[in-house]
Amino acid sequence: MAVSREQIITAAIRHLNAVPTASMAEIATAVGISRATLHRHFTSRDDLVTVLGWRALADWERVQQEAGIAEAAASGDRARLQEALHALLHGEVAICHEHGFLLTENTLPADLLRRSDEIEDREVEFLAACQRAGLIRADLPVRWVSSAVFGLLVAVTESVRRGDVAQRDVPRLFLDTFLKGTS
Amino acid sequence: MAVSREQIITAAIRHLNAVPTASMAEIATAVGISRATLHRHFTSRDDLVTVLGWRALADWERVQQEAGIAEAAASGDRARLQEALHALLHGEVAICHEHGFLLTENTLPADLLRRSDEIEDREVEFLAACQRAGLIRADLPVRWVSSAVFGLLVAVTESVRRGDVAQRDVPRLFLDTFLKGTS
Repeated sequence: MAVSREQIITAAIRHLNAVPTASMAEIATAVGISRATLHRHFTSRDDLVTVLGWRALADWERVQQEAGIAEAAASGDRARLQEALHALLHGEVAICHEHGFLLTENTLPADLLRRSDEIEDREVEFLAACQRAGLIRADLPVRWVSSAVFGLLVAVTESVRRGDVAQRDVPRLFLDTFLKGTS
Repeated sequence: MAVSREQIITAAIRHLNAVPTASMAEIATAVGISRATLHRHFTSRDDLVTVLGWRALADWERVQQEAGIAEAAASGDRARLQEALHALLHGEVAICHEHGFLLTENTLPADLLRRSDEIEDREVEFLAACQRAGLIRADLPVRWVSSAVFGLLVAVTESVRRGDVAQRDVPRLFLDTFLKGTS
């Protein structure tokens, strides 16, 4: 039975989260296909990682939209902002299980990084609104708050990969540490 | 005038912190030497990064020793533990300006990673002692606490590299966020 592109992507993601530096040959073995078949779908490791990178950005945008961060920021309403902040953080830690290895992937192309900066800019605007509403300390530079989210997501990814922390405990640990650290 | 190995290392570190994915050719240009000269000192990018990695581990161990974490953990004394914890975090954020790019470097050799795990194990023992003394919340898994330190150091490195946060504000932001987040 032929393995579909979608099945290859799913298995590749699983392997890259376990072994972030895996080569194309190692990914092919983990997926259970030949190197030639993998190369028919993706010309290089960079090509594969770039495809996964664009998926990650699409999921990140979806999390922002489902959390309603733009509407909450526009409203300035404290309760709405708090609800959106929790939804955002929960959504981000959830997609981390799929995309976490990309947080420390150094070979992403410039156009993808520019798009990533744009999505982060929206998050920064939302976090600034949370600061104005008193949900996040106003004396912290908002770009530091955004970096702290990023850094703690790296911590989540590393902890789960090394088996240090149970996956079901991760949302609580992440939200707890971030919210206490910044509020 | 010939450029010394030490001068090459210093300039390479500066460039890799600005551009973590820099190739040997780009590093040579940034250092102001030919590619041939750089290759006489380091056979490959991996070779260079490994040399820098061992330096980073030596500095990390020095920070742990100067902070006196082993003695503080053995004493179990709250005031001594608190002093050692602050010294440790200050020391770590200080060496981050030199070694930060290594935190997300994916090509480090296995023996270096094993040594890194040993040094982290000592820190975990110390953080556990801080939990027993009530300085860090005891309901957080100690490996998560250690990962949060790591993640926030990644945040520090990224913030400074992107120019989001002034270097002189970094120790306060890092300690504040970590200590509030975990205490």
